[in-house]
Parts: sequence; structure tokens; C-alpha cells
Amino acid sequence: MVTIGVIGGGQLARMMIPASVNIGIDLRVFAETETSSAKLATAVVGDYGDVGQLVEFASSVDVLTFDHEHVPLEHLHTIRDHGTPVYPPPEALALTHSKILMRQHLAQLGVPQPRWAVLTSDTDEKQALDRVGGFPCIAKLPVGGYDGKGVRVIRSWDDCSDWRSAGEVLLEELVPFARELAQLSARRPQGEWNTWPLVETRQEDGVCSEVIAYSDRGVFLTSAEAAKIAEVIAHGVGVVGVLAVELFETVEGELLVNELAMRPHNSGHVFTEFSRTSQFEQHLRAVANFPLGPTDCVAEVGVMTNIFGEVAAESQSKAWESVPSAKIHAYQKAPRAGRKAGHVVVVGSDLETVLSQAREARDIVQVAG
Amino acid sequence: MVTIGVIGGGQLARMMIPASVNIGIDLRVFAETETSSAKLATAVVGDYGDVGQLVEFASSVDVLTFDHEHVPLEHLHTIRDHGTPVYPPPEALALTHSKILMRQHLAQLGVPQPRWAVLTSDTDEKQALDRVGGFPCIAKLPVGGYDGKGVRVIRSWDDCSDWRSAGEVLLEELVPFARELAQLSARRPQGEWNTWPLVETRQEDGVCSEVIAYSDRGVFLTSAEAAKIAEVIAHGVGVVGVLAVELFETVEGELLVNELAMRPHNSGHVFTEFSRTSQFEQHLRAVANFPLGPTDCVAEVGVMTNIFGEVAAESQSKAWESVPSAKIHAYQKAPRAGRKAGHVVVVGSDLETVLSQAREARDIVQVAG
Repeated sequence: MVTIGVIGGGQLARMMIPASVNIGIDLRVFAETETSSAKLATAVVGDYGDVGQLVEFASSVDVLTFDHEHVPLEHLHTIRDHGTPVYPPPEALALTHSKILMRQHLAQLGVPQPRWAVLTSDTDEKQALDRVGGFPCIAKLPVGGYDGKGVRVIRSWDDCSDWRSAGEVLLEELVPFARELAQLSARRPQGEWNTWPLVETRQEDGVCSEVIAYSDRGVFLTSAEAAKIAEVIAHGVGVVGVLAVELFETVEGELLVNELAMRPHNSGHVFTEFSRTSQFEQHLRAVANFPLGPTDCVAEVGVMTNIFGEVAAESQSKAWESVPSAKIHAYQKAPRAGRKAGHVVVVGSDLETVLSQAREARDIVQVAG
Repeated sequence: MVTIGVIGGGQLARMMIPASVNIGIDLRVFAETETSSAKLATAVVGDYGDVGQLVEFASSVDVLTFDHEHVPLEHLHTIRDHGTPVYPPPEALALTHSKILMRQHLAQLGVPQPRWAVLTSDTDEKQALDRVGGFPCIAKLPVGGYDGKGVRVIRSWDDCSDWRSAGEVLLEELVPFARELAQLSARRPQGEWNTWPLVETRQEDGVCSEVIAYSDRGVFLTSAEAAKIAEVIAHGVGVVGVLAVELFETVEGELLVNELAMRPHNSGHVFTEFSRTSQFEQHLRAVANFPLGPTDCVAEVGVMTNIFGEVAAESQSKAWESVPSAKIHAYQKAPRAGRKAGHVVVVGSDLETVLSQAREARDIVQVAG
């Protein structure tokens, strides 16, 4: 029996639980609180900033993986030095710790990405601005941003002066994209690699609100190119586990890499019901070095809608009465305005129907706060 | 949030865990040992024969259900008297505690069943034997049999003299069946009821070894009749949760009820991958009084093969290399010859391929002992 340790007790760790039970893996979660979303599998409650606690936890598992990307990289090296494999490896995870490092590495790999420049205290502002096409452009904090946080559209230097005084800022061109896409895939330590179909992600205020997936990989003209980009990154970076590549598709049909995540990702939740292998099962298989599962789909169309704020347990029955086919996932997190509290997946044969059903179920159970 | 308590920590309780996480139900298992198959959700380790422990456990949950049928009925009445709903209700469960009571009740409902007779100390043997068509016939212990235990083909009275000296024995005709089938369905407290497709169950030595399911409900000519029988029983008995009706299909195409179970059942494991709603999710939805989920299928054919003895963890990788699409469930139970230790499900479009893949994966991971 393989024992997998997960740092972090959020909804991603939570959703690894069904997969672990189904495939017979022991899951041990290192959570921040007793009442985390993944409390059912919580083995240790501790501080992921404390390397001693992490090393002790790691000694109780066969391999270590993550619910989030906040563990200091030096701690991961220490854990690995003590003999526990860490997947994804810290060298790969480093790219998710610094958006600047990510841009540099993707440039080396020849992967298409938005034009970018780094602003330091002694950067020639005009030159940097020219490189990203002038104002308006995007400013990003190199570290710690997610769900639209740490990202701004700036129209003048004043719009990011607070960030600049604190350190480096990444500038990126404001891409006139037609839509946003995500390419999920997974990779084993020795290189076996497998994709799910490319999906469309729809955002509101910088946060993913809906994901649309089609079983026909030809629906998106950029499908093969997206898979190729993901493959180059997965192997080039040495990812182990699930890799999510967030992409802009420009009006000219060009793909540009927006962000990376090296763990199960919101844009892949739809595959739990839509694919023969969920991203959570695939992640566990990959980090345990088991052969990857098939990713063919069980319907023509799948839609995921995020639930923000709070999932109203008392409305679940009503939602199922209206949309019997809706799979409603509640993360059992403390309610907070704007926080992802759950999601809905509906699969079927017709986008219009499936999308309206997924929205209807979400609207019934969501307490937006 | 609904909290469901489960008495028993076997593989059925284990397989309720993924369903409970997915639909946001808190599952609390009352297990016999710390190391049960459902240890991840175990809240209490205790003795299900001790009514005090049961009542205390029941007070911590919203509704009580079961992994097995061994809890004394009087204890269930006591729990309900203390205010916790018990599903299936003890009145329904009573039929699974006495095969004689079951035969009597099914007769009252007019459900087709094998000819039967009860042998007591003062029964006219000849008359009873005539009623079941003479030797050879089937003798059953009224209480406690499962997986072929407590069931014998007898060719003379000597073959069951030990049982007769201990109490009542149920005699049944030896049905010349063409095949064995199972009709799974689920019912909510107020009567909402839903079926999965009829499945074929194949037995070896009285124990189910394989289950075959088709999405086309017309594949079995007896499909509509099987559903009707299940519906009559579900409502007539007042089942809440999953009801499994095991059926003989005679060479003339007649259906006769063999056994009943009022919980998720081995013959329904195939639906975890083959149907949009697994029997475990449906059972939890039914006992929590949530609307039932859709039971349409995600492929043409699904096959389940049981793994006996022990699941060799070290062979799991090899099995997946040979059959990437195999879903291999290991129950994490102590190995024992003949014990169900796990199962494999494969779904696809062609029975021959799917069946051979499911057997191949089973043969690789099974340590028969």
C-alpha cells in the first residue's frame, strides 16, 4: 500500500480523498486547522512553515505532494534530503513561486507567452513599457498572487507605485484575447504523460466562474497546439503530477501561456464527472508512480460552475429537484464573501442545456454573501 | 450539513466515503475495529450488540444506516425511539433477518419466488418436500447466511439433519435457472424510487464472481418485469435506501426472487463507474431524504470482477500497464482465503473486450490464497 502525504487541507486535498479510497491509496493530510476542508484525511495539524514538523510528517509517508504552493522551497529540499520524494519536485515548483522565473523558464523552452518585462528599481521604465506594448498593460506581483489577487491592469506608473516601492514587479502586455483556455495534463516521474481535452475557462473579476469541456478534441482549433505547449512545459520543467496551463487564445487564434499550476486545478474539476479519470485520481497515480488512467470522456459536453461565498445546505434538495443531474460539491469551508465554497458539474449532449442547468443549480445553492 | 451514521466498517461503509465527500455529507462510521475497511470515516469503535453504545452513537448523527444486517432489530427500535431515524426501517430490515419471514412477506405481496416450505420439528416432511418438488432441493438456515454460507443443495434428509436439530430450516425448490440477475433500485422515505439497469450476476461456489451490466435496458427481455418486482418490494416493504433483489431467470424466462439486501450490494459495484449515480451516492441521498440522482449509464457495457483473498498492492502497477482502463478497488481488509478483498470495474462498448480486460486485471492483482 502506498501512502501519499498532502501538505495543505483545502478543497484540493479534500477531493483527493475519494480518489484515494477508490484506488486504494492511504492519504495523510498535513492541514493548518482541525476543521479544514480535508479534515476526514487529516493526520497532522501543523504549520507548513516549520521544517521540523514537515520532515516528521514526511517520514510517515512514501511520497509528498501538495494542496497549495506556499511551502518554502528550501523546506522541500530538506524533506527530499531526508529521503522522501517530493512531487512536483521543488525545482519545478519554483516556477510557481516566482512569476518572473516562470516567464524566464518558458522563454528558454520557446513556449509562446505574452510580451513581458521585469521592473526593478533601476529598470529603464520606457524600455520596459515599450516591450509590453505601452499602457494599458498588466502588472503582477512576482509572488503569492492567485484568483486575480496580485494582478492589475495599469494605465500609468501611479497604478503600481505601491508595488514598485516594495520590490520587483512583472509587466505583461494586455493580451486582446478572444477567450481563455486551460490545458490539463499529468506526468509521471519517468515521463509518461497524458492530457485531458482543452477546456474553456470563463472568468469574472479575474476569478474562474465557469469551465466548459467538450469530448471532441477538435472543437477547439488550437487543441493540438495547446497539448503540445503543455507537453513541452511538463517535460521541460520536470513536472510530476497534474499540470494546469492557463492560456489566452488571441483573436488571431494564437495561444499564449498566462499562468501555470502544478497540482489539480479549478479548471479541471469538470473531469471528475466528465472523464474516466479525474484529475485527483490522476495526480495520485502520477505522484505514486502508477500508470496514468484513460482520459476519454463520458458525454459530449461538461460544464463546471463555481459556487462562491457559501453553499446553502438547506437548498441542496431544491437544487436537485430542479436539476437532478447536477453534481453539487460543497467544500465544507467557513463561509466568506467571494471565497470558492463549492462547485457544480453537469454533463450532457448539448451545451446550452448543460450550461443553463449548471448555472441553475449553482444559483439555487449559492449564498454569495 | 447532514450527518449520516453507518453501523459497520466494512467495504460498503468504505465506499460510501467518496460519495459522502462528493455530495457534502458528513459520514460517521461505527466500526468493530480500529483497522476496519472504513477506518478513514470511523468515528466510534464499538460493539454493535451493545444498545447503549448504539444509542450514544445515534445521538451524534441525523440519520442511521448500515454496512451490514447484523444489528439486533430491537436495538434499532430503541434507537428510533430515542429520536434518530433508522433507514432502512427495522420493519423492512426484519425481512433480511429471517429468510422465512421474507418468503412469507413476498408471498403476501404476490411476488414470484421459488416454491418453499418451512421445516419445523413437527412438519410433515413428505408434504414439505412435495411442495418444493422433491429432492434435490435447497435447504437454508433462516438466519445469518451470506455468500453461499447457510445454503445447501440437499439430496436426502441426512444432508441437513444437523440444521434441523438446531431449529427451523427453510426448504426451497432447486430452480433450473438459465442465469442469475440482480435488480438494484433505491427509495426515499416518501416513496420516490429509481432503478439502475438489471444486471447479470455470475456465481462461483455460491459467491458472486462477476457482474455484467448493459446501458440498453432492453438487452434483458425480463428487464421491465424485474423493475416491477423491485418496485413492488420497495414500496410493499417500505425500504429506504438501496434495495438489491437477486433473481433467478428460469429457462422459460420466468423471474423468481432469490434473496434481498437493503443496502448497497456487491452486484451494484459496477455502477460506480458505469452509472451517473453510484449506489453509494444514491443510498446516502435516499437515507438523507435528498432527491435521487440519474441512473443513466456512461458506456454500453460495464463489467465487475470480484477479487478474493488479497489484493497485491505490488501488482497494481502491472495491472494498470496491461489494462489502463481498469478501475481497481482495494478494500484494505486483512487477507483471508475466499474473502472479498476488492473488485475491478471496466466499462466500454463491447462485452467480450470489457469482460476479458476486467478478468485480466483481476488475475494480475488477485492473490487468491
